[in-house]
Amino acid sequence: MARQERAIRTRESILEAMASLFVEVGYEAATIAALLERTGLTRGALYFHFPTKEAMARGVLARAVTREGVRPQKHKLQEWVDLGLLLAHRLPREPMLRAAVQLSVDPKARSLFGTRWPDWIDVGEDLLVEAGKRGELLPHAVPAEIARLAVGAWTGVQLVTEVLPENRDLSEEISRLYRLILPAVARPGILAELDLSPCRGERLLGPAADAGAPVADGTPA
Amino acid sequence: MARQERAIRTRESILEAMASLFVEVGYEAATIAALLERTGLTRGALYFHFPTKEAMARGVLARAVTREGVRPQKHKLQEWVDLGLLLAHRLPREPMLRAAVQLSVDPKARSLFGTRWPDWIDVGEDLLVEAGKRGELLPHAVPAEIARLAVGAWTGVQLVTEVLPENRDLSEEISRLYRLILPAVARPGILAELDLSPCRGERLLGPAADAGAPVADGTPA
Repeated sequence: MARQERAIRTRESILEAMASLFVEVGYEAATIAALLERTGLTRGALYFHFPTKEAMARGVLARAVTREGVRPQKHKLQEWVDLGLLLAHRLPREPMLRAAVQLSVDPKARSLFGTRWPDWIDVGEDLLVEAGKRGELLPHAVPAEIARLAVGAWTGVQLVTEVLPENRDLSEEISRLYRLILPAVARPGILAELDLSPCRGERLLGPAADAGAPVADGTPA
Repeated sequence: MARQERAIRTRESILEAMASLFVEVGYEAATIAALLERTGLTRGALYFHFPTKEAMARGVLARAVTREGVRPQKHKLQEWVDLGLLLAHRLPREPMLRAAVQLSVDPKARSLFGTRWPDWIDVGEDLLVEAGKRGELLPHAVPAEIARLAVGAWTGVQLVTEVLPENRDLSEEISRLYRLILPAVARPGILAELDLSPCRGERLLGPAADAGAPVADGTPA
């Protein structure tokens, strides 16, 4: 049992080291040799867990679509926003998520493994369809279109934020993005009740949220 | 003179061939050998124009920021929208523009050459500041923020559109993006007068636009 736990932890640390490499130099330039140097593992030990670089990339991508931290809210639109704000909070802190985004963007990796964008769009669309049934959306808002555009816009804002020299906070930028698009999505009465603040992602993951503090019922803080 | 013209044409065809390679396999995997095979040039002839792959990448990026087709309109906001709709129309048709976007997205190429995103943001911000002076923007709209978010959103929507299997038209998607964000940017009276239609880019580049047809004065068509 202890051995199995250690194996799981080794596997996880390999994935994390490879994720960091993908982030730093891109899929194509990330080599097994650099990974071995970074982890101190032997080639044999590595191959026990992952036969190829491709297998590691698949392992990273499998972690990419996550609803961790999203909990039921008064408005379904709030859950949709929470998805994006949580990811904005976690991405700069988790190389695994950054690597997954990077692999989706890299043309070579993308041609080998595809991307998780369709999965993200599906998750968002489901929430928006439900929001529509509850009367939260403006009459002309089309859930499938909004879900698709939002995944694109989110991805691009993340990319550009990472590159610009100003070193902006991703949560601030994604919060601004939602303030930019939600007036064309939400009915005004609902919009006024949504919490779009940049610190929402952090609060949803924090201990206060676990205790059922106001943040969990969709009340703007 | 004829020799100089031929040299310019050769240089251009090399850049275009390399741009196509960048688009197909990414910066890292694009090789001089593949380029020589594709163009039929000798190594010597190639090196006369470009000493390295890096020089070709710089050549491609130098073409990336273009206001081609944008002409004075009744509303400055229309010129800002035109910038994005023109690029959406041209990108799928011009490997050079696609390659420039790809190089900005590729982490290796980006670390070597930077991106043109700051230039695009500046161009957009100038137009939005002018729109603000003319009273076209909502009171809380901040030109610098909107310009930055729009460049990010545009880039991401392009990326995702390219990848999704549905094979959507980029002009349609970018038109939808503007319809999504402009209600939070433009005063309602101005919004109603903007032409956000997907075919605007094509019309601005067409012969009718050159002749000063209605499209040039910002009238919705």
